[in-house]
Amino acid sequence: MVVLEQEKSKQERPQIYLKAFPLRDREEVDDVKRNLSSNVIVILRITPLAQKNIEELRKAVEELYNYTTAIGGDIARLGEERIVVTPPGVKIWRGLL
Amino acid sequence: MVVLEQEKSKQERPQIYLKAFPLRDREEVDDVKRNLSSNVIVILRITPLAQKNIEELRKAVEELYNYTTAIGGDIARLGEERIVVTPPGVKIWRGLL
Repeated sequence: MVVLEQEKSKQERPQIYLKAFPLRDREEVDDVKRNLSSNVIVILRITPLAQKNIEELRKAVEELYNYTTAIGGDIARLGEERIVVTPPGVKIWRGLL
Repeated sequence: MVVLEQEKSKQERPQIYLKAFPLRDREEVDDVKRNLSSNVIVILRITPLAQKNIEELRKAVEELYNYTTAIGGDIARLGEERIVVTPPGVKIWRGLL
């Protein structure tokens, strides 16, 4: 927390965080949403849920797609194992992703 | 460009971009640096250079580490195949990356 305050005072704009974690369960989508609304970029490893239940994964990604679209964020696939979801103000470049 | 201006007018802070691309050659480190200085987060797939020349990869990552540290950005490994490098103002969370 102390570090966060120090960082803030150095920056003019608010600090953006980037987190990477796995999606093991569809209920963890709520955790991703909370992070997005706190200005956190999330790199989500989807293989754990993909190996468990591909239909649940499909629903989870659809839910995240709808949410990021609604808040003005962005979402894209990153290779075979991950997706990237961003809060408003962070745009994914569609070149080679 | 038109889209970019529209986005800007909607946001209070400057737009941040996120790009993902492969590192095939050590000379492409300059391209990554240019992106960082333009406020772009880069997710770099390092396997192409790793398969070609592991010593060149080591030097490339060291160069990127020194650069991001100097400008106040951040750098971290993402799984086996990628590294993430961020411009100032974007901090990588060290939980599960």
